[in-house]
Amino acid sequence: MRIAIIGFGNLGKGICRAFVDKAEFLRNTHGLIPQVVAVVDEFGAATDEKGLNLSQLLKTAETTGTVAKYPRGKRGKLARDVIEDVNADLVFELTPTNIRTGEPGISHIKGAMQSGKHVITSNKGPLVVAFRELDNLAKRQGVEFRYSASVGGAIPVISLARKLLGGNEISEIRGVLNGTTNYILTRMAAEGAPQDIIIREAQELGYAEKDPSLDIDGIDTACKVTILANSVLGINAKIRDVKRVGIRRITPDATRLAQESGQTIKLVGIAKRGLLEVGPKLVPMGHPLAVSGTLNAVTFELDLAREISIAGYGAGPKETSSSLLGDLLDIHHTLGG
Amino acid sequence: MRIAIIGFGNLGKGICRAFVDKAEFLRNTHGLIPQVVAVVDEFGAATDEKGLNLSQLLKTAETTGTVAKYPRGKRGKLARDVIEDVNADLVFELTPTNIRTGEPGISHIKGAMQSGKHVITSNKGPLVVAFRELDNLAKRQGVEFRYSASVGGAIPVISLARKLLGGNEISEIRGVLNGTTNYILTRMAAEGAPQDIIIREAQELGYAEKDPSLDIDGIDTACKVTILANSVLGINAKIRDVKRVGIRRITPDATRLAQESGQTIKLVGIAKRGLLEVGPKLVPMGHPLAVSGTLNAVTFELDLAREISIAGYGAGPKETSSSLLGDLLDIHHTLGG
Repeated sequence: MRIAIIGFGNLGKGICRAFVDKAEFLRNTHGLIPQVVAVVDEFGAATDEKGLNLSQLLKTAETTGTVAKYPRGKRGKLARDVIEDVNADLVFELTPTNIRTGEPGISHIKGAMQSGKHVITSNKGPLVVAFRELDNLAKRQGVEFRYSASVGGAIPVISLARKLLGGNEISEIRGVLNGTTNYILTRMAAEGAPQDIIIREAQELGYAEKDPSLDIDGIDTACKVTILANSVLGINAKIRDVKRVGIRRITPDATRLAQESGQTIKLVGIAKRGLLEVGPKLVPMGHPLAVSGTLNAVTFELDLAREISIAGYGAGPKETSSSLLGDLLDIHHTLGG
Repeated sequence: MRIAIIGFGNLGKGICRAFVDKAEFLRNTHGLIPQVVAVVDEFGAATDEKGLNLSQLLKTAETTGTVAKYPRGKRGKLARDVIEDVNADLVFELTPTNIRTGEPGISHIKGAMQSGKHVITSNKGPLVVAFRELDNLAKRQGVEFRYSASVGGAIPVISLARKLLGGNEISEIRGVLNGTTNYILTRMAAEGAPQDIIIREAQELGYAEKDPSLDIDGIDTACKVTILANSVLGINAKIRDVKRVGIRRITPDATRLAQESGQTIKLVGIAKRGLLEVGPKLVPMGHPLAVSGTLNAVTFELDLAREISIAGYGAGPKETSSSLLGDLLDIHHTLGG
């Protein structure tokens, strides 16, 4: 399979490392030989019709800060040209999320689909802003479109719902979908420390962004609720349809009171017909959503199985490469590989 | 799809009820029309080339105790004859588990495969006694063989590993695989009551068998460890290879001590190369295996995703019909439906 990677931050590097480390496994177990013919970052591009040397490319990007320094690499804003012109079967769209415009992700994904390429993305922006449009375009163009890594990081949330729970009707999805807030709430409950101190430490550990608002005001969780509503429940929802409260008002006392009554406070996203919501909720200890630390978890309410929950790491380049690779294998097998 | 059901206890009735209740959903969403042409119980059989009337059959079985009283039903030990002679595409083998001999399940499954029929079973006996033999026979005969309901009830444990975690190498599986012991341990921790009293109450509620040994001595969990080792890890294991300790020696004090230190005692089954084990283990509260009540949970250790866990109800006819139906849909779609 001939692959182009657009965006070469942690996730782009993570999937390349998985291709290097697992080349033999992928070939022997799945008959998949991923041949990366183009990689584009914000400064330039490296391309090779015969397949880039990924170990060398990773080294180049780490030492020089751009893939443009790879032999015969080019400088410039090259994403759109590469997407349309490269001779590839599939594009990974892994640029940063912009939830207001969805760009440049939307243009990249459209460009790839319009030139007949399958698309895998981790980018929440295009999905939040233009889910229906992109989903319909993929169908019209007859290309595959996957976005497992956009919700739950390493956890195959969307694939579980679509592929393994098919005998069930899903009435509701509830999820702890943001590892940063889960980490903050877990430490508040364990230590009774105030939120701002824990946020500062989380920033130092790299668990929280400089501007923590996306996480602690529930915006990231609302994005994921929107994506789940669209992709799993078939609800034509926008992020403005999600009722949203963050965790700023949660005090250490509240987390301790919850704990004393055998419960725990989590920032929970909820998607069902008639209600899209993000807010702090009490979850009983021992419930599958009561996972601690940076873990994420999702519970599906079902007519037959009642409740199925899945948990794992919602972030991390290596962890998330599990979902990117899962999508690639899914497309590989769907196409008869 | 033409279906024969062998064994008409709670699970056989459960899948028939799902066929009745979800006929429209299955047809519209999956293009599946399940036509049950034979049902066999311990007293006799009901058959109809044109498809049995399942509502009438369920009523007959509930009021008379056997499907033999269905119009033109027959009395006698008819399973083997029906399996070989019936014009069906697929056999559900849902007779009771015998983990020593695997019978009559093994003979039923072999008979079905040898006459070219796909097989779905919930029966741990044949899988524990003869996994390799049955798996190889299915391959030789070119038929599909599924057994999701044998581990984790409603939870798609085996399908998750096989279909959604394919990019990962699985190094270890750990699971809370027995709802009865989980219920007992949860109540011991919550109430400090002694085990024998809780077992008696669990028996009254129908959560525990008259002879609780299979559950509390870890035998049921050891069966599931054996099945996971064979089916997911490719280890050629027998139940005698599983080191096993039950929960009889766990005192209310121990459960309370664990709780005071933020942990919980679970009966955990472990499968990895070089170690198959069942025994009580301390699990930190907030870990995805620390589920309470009758829930089951399974954690996979993975090279990319690190840990993915899945939880849900491990028993119950309606819940388990989710897995039986999941297997049927998987075969239906595998065959191009």
